[in-house]
Amino acid sequence: MPHLLTSILSAKHWDAAVITSLPNVRYLTGFTGSNAIVLVLPDQLILFTDPRYTIQAGQEFPGRTRIVKGPLENALKKWLSRMGFVAFENETIRYQSQIAVASLLPKRAKMEGMGPLIEELRMIKRPDEIANIRKAVTINSQAFDIAMKRFKPGVTERDLAAEIEYQMRRMGAEKPAFDTIVAFGQHSALPHARPRDVKIDGNGLLLIDMGAFWAGYASDMTRMAHLGRPPQRTKAHYRAVLEALEAAEASVKPGVAAKKVDAVARQVLQTHGMDKLFTHSTGHGLGLEIHEPPRVGRKMNTKLCAGMTITIEPGAYLQGEQGVRIEDTILVTENGAEILTPTSKDMLVL
Amino acid sequence: MPHLLTSILSAKHWDAAVITSLPNVRYLTGFTGSNAIVLVLPDQLILFTDPRYTIQAGQEFPGRTRIVKGPLENALKKWLSRMGFVAFENETIRYQSQIAVASLLPKRAKMEGMGPLIEELRMIKRPDEIANIRKAVTINSQAFDIAMKRFKPGVTERDLAAEIEYQMRRMGAEKPAFDTIVAFGQHSALPHARPRDVKIDGNGLLLIDMGAFWAGYASDMTRMAHLGRPPQRTKAHYRAVLEALEAAEASVKPGVAAKKVDAVARQVLQTHGMDKLFTHSTGHGLGLEIHEPPRVGRKMNTKLCAGMTITIEPGAYLQGEQGVRIEDTILVTENGAEILTPTSKDMLVL
Repeated sequence: MPHLLTSILSAKHWDAAVITSLPNVRYLTGFTGSNAIVLVLPDQLILFTDPRYTIQAGQEFPGRTRIVKGPLENALKKWLSRMGFVAFENETIRYQSQIAVASLLPKRAKMEGMGPLIEELRMIKRPDEIANIRKAVTINSQAFDIAMKRFKPGVTERDLAAEIEYQMRRMGAEKPAFDTIVAFGQHSALPHARPRDVKIDGNGLLLIDMGAFWAGYASDMTRMAHLGRPPQRTKAHYRAVLEALEAAEASVKPGVAAKKVDAVARQVLQTHGMDKLFTHSTGHGLGLEIHEPPRVGRKMNTKLCAGMTITIEPGAYLQGEQGVRIEDTILVTENGAEILTPTSKDMLVL
Repeated sequence: MPHLLTSILSAKHWDAAVITSLPNVRYLTGFTGSNAIVLVLPDQLILFTDPRYTIQAGQEFPGRTRIVKGPLENALKKWLSRMGFVAFENETIRYQSQIAVASLLPKRAKMEGMGPLIEELRMIKRPDEIANIRKAVTINSQAFDIAMKRFKPGVTERDLAAEIEYQMRRMGAEKPAFDTIVAFGQHSALPHARPRDVKIDGNGLLLIDMGAFWAGYASDMTRMAHLGRPPQRTKAHYRAVLEALEAAEASVKPGVAAKKVDAVARQVLQTHGMDKLFTHSTGHGLGLEIHEPPRVGRKMNTKLCAGMTITIEPGAYLQGEQGVRIEDTILVTENGAEILTPTSKDMLVL
């Protein structure tokens, strides 16, 4: 990775790049602490962190490390004070940090925003990253299976979310990748529903959207269950979304634009008169962050490449009635989508 | 709250203030979404968020709300384009957001960093905030009690952390306030230890540091247990830290500088020859964030006031051997510290 970055430095005529986004710091160095900057130089990376992390930095990053008391930016002075052209992460850096870094440069020097350059490098996963995502996906599905086996009508949305997150942790997850969504009945029509102290009982659709972190890497899955026998209308609603999911997954291959996959999902829903009910993007990249590039949305020209890990998650939401979303985590391979999520896509009847 | 802010605007000669920190947005408006800006004007607050939150914003904030597609900053133009002096949150705003806001102002206009002004307002809690913190503290202690009753030697650190977080959720917590620390034996000497797949078995100290969110507000508690009969040396280690905690708590009253409370804890540990083993601050404010002003540290001149909620958490860490930390959440009252944490401060023997 360093050699790739150094060739980017050279191509852009940057003397150095200052990396301040923590997921990017972790990506470049393996360091997992909560306070760090990486200075990318033509011949090396230097990690800056504080004394709380002296031991941990030594264990996680084999390269040159500086332990700094006080603001980390100040420690960059030794390097930056003789540079002319320095890149920084303009999309994520804090204003105060940018001001501090800029103040260290000579007067004639220039800074250039590097945009989501590291995020774009991160889109294509290394084999060790893919292995971690596979494990995060497996844990997540196992936790889902156990929680569903133990499910009894009358439990609240909140308690079921607690049970799911507990089972993830028992399987070895570091933590949930996001706040678990458990949404019953009408509530399933809210894409960002929060679990309530409301009992899951009687008849209706149950939406569960859950993810786990393993070794820093995320998984993401949505599955639907139905309490009682699902009516024909609900079955049709479910089948339409499932068809959109499967068509979108089938359209995935290297060289296809992300927006094309999004369009495939929308077209299927349109044939069912449900395209207006699909109010979000079809998916997103995931890795060290639960949402990272590429977004699988209407306007995303980014071409899919082998090694990308993304979600495919079409939905159709009937406000005041019910919503359906089905979501897999997939790996883009030379042969198309490898669906990592092992959980059955049948609607579970509880 | 608006009238206090408007008097600040007037005193500082600001035409408006742009609030971009999400905890500050929540504090000022009650809005809990993940994408928002608040514009503070002399006569009102305006909340800007995106279409995902149309319904939620209406439920949570009774004031004027603008639903915006695309970057929220752009929607400020209508107001900012005629202003001369605008405050912004320089310590937390992202560089790109600051650039976007600045570009909307007329050429002659000026922006001024407001520092942690809203964070300072947040230091003194309203009665409803204190009620939420009390509940978060109660839930946390109940979860601790249940998890400790169910504890059996041989469980791993990771599983005990999972059990604790599950019990919190069962008691109604939204989520843990931070990654629960469960650290056994030598590992208890690491103040920021992460739970391992290591069995808690045999003899040794067990450190548990845990907190819960309730209605957006945090609690924080650390307690120690010992597997097997604690040796005299461990008892002495524990008693020294407990003495430091109790002395620091007794020193709390309105008008006392935060650094004085920190000094009291250090002085007690010094009489036991343990001041060098106390490698962090004595405590921190907590509320909408798990760490917020005032820090209870060596150099903090901030004077304690009735209505502040802070932690007191002295520790003494013998690297390679064992560590002890004991932590309460307290409320500063006219009569001194009210210790909110109900859990016994005796070392639990398991």
